[in-house]
Amino acid sequence: MYDLIIIGMGPGGYEATMTALRKKLNIAIVEKGKLGGNCLNRACIPTKYYRAGAHLSEKLEKAQLYGIDLTVSNVSFTKAKEGKDKAISFLRKSLSQLLKAKKTPVFKGTGRIVDKNTVEITYPDGSKEEIKGKYILIATGSIPSSVGGIVPDGEYILTTEDFMENLEQLPENLVVIGGGVAGCEIGYIASAYGSNVTIVEIKDRLLPIPSVSMEVSKNLQRKFKKLGIQFLLNTYVKDYRIENNKIILLLSDGKEITADRVLLSVGRKPNTQNIDSIGIEKDERGFIKVNQFLQTNFDNIYACGDVVSSPMLAHVAAYEARIAIKNMFEEKKEKIDYSIIPWAIFSAFEIAHVGLTEEQAKKKGIDAISGYYPYTYNEKAVDELESEGFVRLVFDKNSHRLIGGTVVGIEASEIIHTIAYGIKNKMTAEEIHSFVYFHPSLSEIFIYATYDIVEGKLF
Amino acid sequence: MYDLIIIGMGPGGYEATMTALRKKLNIAIVEKGKLGGNCLNRACIPTKYYRAGAHLSEKLEKAQLYGIDLTVSNVSFTKAKEGKDKAISFLRKSLSQLLKAKKTPVFKGTGRIVDKNTVEITYPDGSKEEIKGKYILIATGSIPSSVGGIVPDGEYILTTEDFMENLEQLPENLVVIGGGVAGCEIGYIASAYGSNVTIVEIKDRLLPIPSVSMEVSKNLQRKFKKLGIQFLLNTYVKDYRIENNKIILLLSDGKEITADRVLLSVGRKPNTQNIDSIGIEKDERGFIKVNQFLQTNFDNIYACGDVVSSPMLAHVAAYEARIAIKNMFEEKKEKIDYSIIPWAIFSAFEIAHVGLTEEQAKKKGIDAISGYYPYTYNEKAVDELESEGFVRLVFDKNSHRLIGGTVVGIEASEIIHTIAYGIKNKMTAEEIHSFVYFHPSLSEIFIYATYDIVEGKLF
Repeated sequence: MYDLIIIGMGPGGYEATMTALRKKLNIAIVEKGKLGGNCLNRACIPTKYYRAGAHLSEKLEKAQLYGIDLTVSNVSFTKAKEGKDKAISFLRKSLSQLLKAKKTPVFKGTGRIVDKNTVEITYPDGSKEEIKGKYILIATGSIPSSVGGIVPDGEYILTTEDFMENLEQLPENLVVIGGGVAGCEIGYIASAYGSNVTIVEIKDRLLPIPSVSMEVSKNLQRKFKKLGIQFLLNTYVKDYRIENNKIILLLSDGKEITADRVLLSVGRKPNTQNIDSIGIEKDERGFIKVNQFLQTNFDNIYACGDVVSSPMLAHVAAYEARIAIKNMFEEKKEKIDYSIIPWAIFSAFEIAHVGLTEEQAKKKGIDAISGYYPYTYNEKAVDELESEGFVRLVFDKNSHRLIGGTVVGIEASEIIHTIAYGIKNKMTAEEIHSFVYFHPSLSEIFIYATYDIVEGKLF
Repeated sequence: MYDLIIIGMGPGGYEATMTALRKKLNIAIVEKGKLGGNCLNRACIPTKYYRAGAHLSEKLEKAQLYGIDLTVSNVSFTKAKEGKDKAISFLRKSLSQLLKAKKTPVFKGTGRIVDKNTVEITYPDGSKEEIKGKYILIATGSIPSSVGGIVPDGEYILTTEDFMENLEQLPENLVVIGGGVAGCEIGYIASAYGSNVTIVEIKDRLLPIPSVSMEVSKNLQRKFKKLGIQFLLNTYVKDYRIENNKIILLLSDGKEITADRVLLSVGRKPNTQNIDSIGIEKDERGFIKVNQFLQTNFDNIYACGDVVSSPMLAHVAAYEARIAIKNMFEEKKEKIDYSIIPWAIFSAFEIAHVGLTEEQAKKKGIDAISGYYPYTYNEKAVDELESEGFVRLVFDKNSHRLIGGTVVGIEASEIIHTIAYGIKNKMTAEEIHSFVYFHPSLSEIFIYATYDIVEGKLF
């Protein structure tokens, strides 16, 4: 009997494996697809690869300001895909080599829990095998949702996964349904690599997410306009038809738009169908119910990642996995804590956030104030020719404690962690202001974003 | 009578101004040269501008991995200088506009303190003027040192300031005397823009600074070798002569090397000659003596930045300026605290450090352990095609408290601030390990750099 069976080798399964191996546990992995799951093969990692290329191609327009004269003869998504595949297979290989070195068995089939200690594996050829474990971790992730009768067909209507894993050739005209995170990330990439992109969003702004402030949405919308990325707000797709190798979408305002391909990015749902035959409890949306220790209704079966009802983020899955393994094998149980979850988006801007926005704080009844400073006058941003962006720090007005922060612009996804540590450690505006930051860095913007609060306004 | 006279408008004077203006003080600025001082005009900011260009030109070699086919027809330092001048004049202009908007007088001459409340200004035409202030802040910075009879002449032997402010054309062969921070930064830039670079360093490694670990020096040396940047360690220049428009250096090992230009980067000394006629106390090296509130031996005269004996860094000057102004005008005095000073170097790698290295900790009698993780397997680094680098975190072995950290690789100069906040808040390896970091980010390396300590080794 294994100490632990991990079903699903995405970011949750990976992190569980890393922790379990260091605890010298005897583990087995069940994974029906590629090691690394969606995150590595079809989501986070390919997205950031293409985004790095997209951003570089934008940057090239400024190269002559550095005295670099160059001519771009071709920008090819097809070739970028080769680079992407290479990068991802390097990462996947290093993972599989690690598992081999540790002699960790990987069962390459679909796992299903048939009693509280048994996972039945169904292989692609239909054959079955059962393995037994003291503990089981469900980390099977999520699959793309569809909406209003628009069903991905892998040809005209693509999921984000189709796009990120398999797409060889960009369509000339791409319509993206859904202006959320994935829609804004992939819309930017497709535009940079040469597609005409139109994003259709049912709500009144891009990134219509509570933790994204209106200020951020408006910044991104302005940038999209500059880049020629179109977006239709307060709009949804009522119907569609295929004609002459094109897809024609009928919109809620009665207009039609024609595209070569449609990207459907309207969210994801937990991949929990057929996960068990023993009555593991799920909520009405299919998420596995867990307690604050990440235990299901079977005390030796835990779940983490997109299968549980928490933010659908790879790093949340990894965090949950670490906590789940601890709670299985350590004396002292640890409660899961979602209060400080930094996140980032890589679209035309890098956008990162942690904690509360001013709007969210006010809704919670917290008297909030905030400090703002743009990248415009930051010396590093100017030197990097990347002076679009800003930092906004949110404080409790009474205690001056840091409760949230947003960064838009280069390196936002790193800087956000300094803010996150500030929140974690209950730092005040005064402490943040009087800290020593390297010059020239972007992080020193924290001094300037807190000046008004600490020393009074300049004007 | 002004509330405050600030002598010198570099990063110290700038920050003092920002704080003083917010306190609604009536201030005067004395500056004989350009607003922004060395940092903006001749050091940090031009260096980082050129370095951004150098790094971009290196990056272009990888562009095809993103599907971008390009041809570089020319890489011109001369043209880069135009861009650099534009960036810097934008920043200088925004500073001067701010001062105008606040109606802050700027006296464009050399300041000298002639009694404890009076600064005599000597203008370029020789005329003089006196102004009076309740408080005076000396922030006149530093000037380049020379060594062993090698005297900068602005033609064959350049200071870092000559290079950064005025140099129009790169020499074909450049010898850099001094393999410290400026030498390694400018050596990299010159090489990327086409010079053959040889660095001559008297000590046994590049960056021979206590807070730079041997591991970091060796990494940089390996990279320099790859890039064809030569360096001669344990070597110094004994003599030189000019012949046929070349400079020939006689080295300590008896060999000669010939260069078109020599860059002398052997440190800086305080710019305090003729700063006063009233007996402001200085140490034997010319640094102004201040107490822990940054007061000189005259209680209304303070000093900050390179004129005092603290780390010669722009951000230390700015920090000292904030503290000095507080101590002049607020009831509660604040002691200066140099325990957490993050710094960074922008050479072939971005290198950043804060707190103690393992070597330094051990010398202090602290039982230290450290955690290491390379960029190699970090997904973001792989996506950015920038997987050279690493993070090393240093902990007190008994308490597991974070006491130092080094980052080598992209975005090091931002990530270092998260580590700095961790040290400030006395975070433990366990707290750092169990924190939630965005995926994919470089900062999540903190999880992997603490795994061995928190969960035990993998192998």
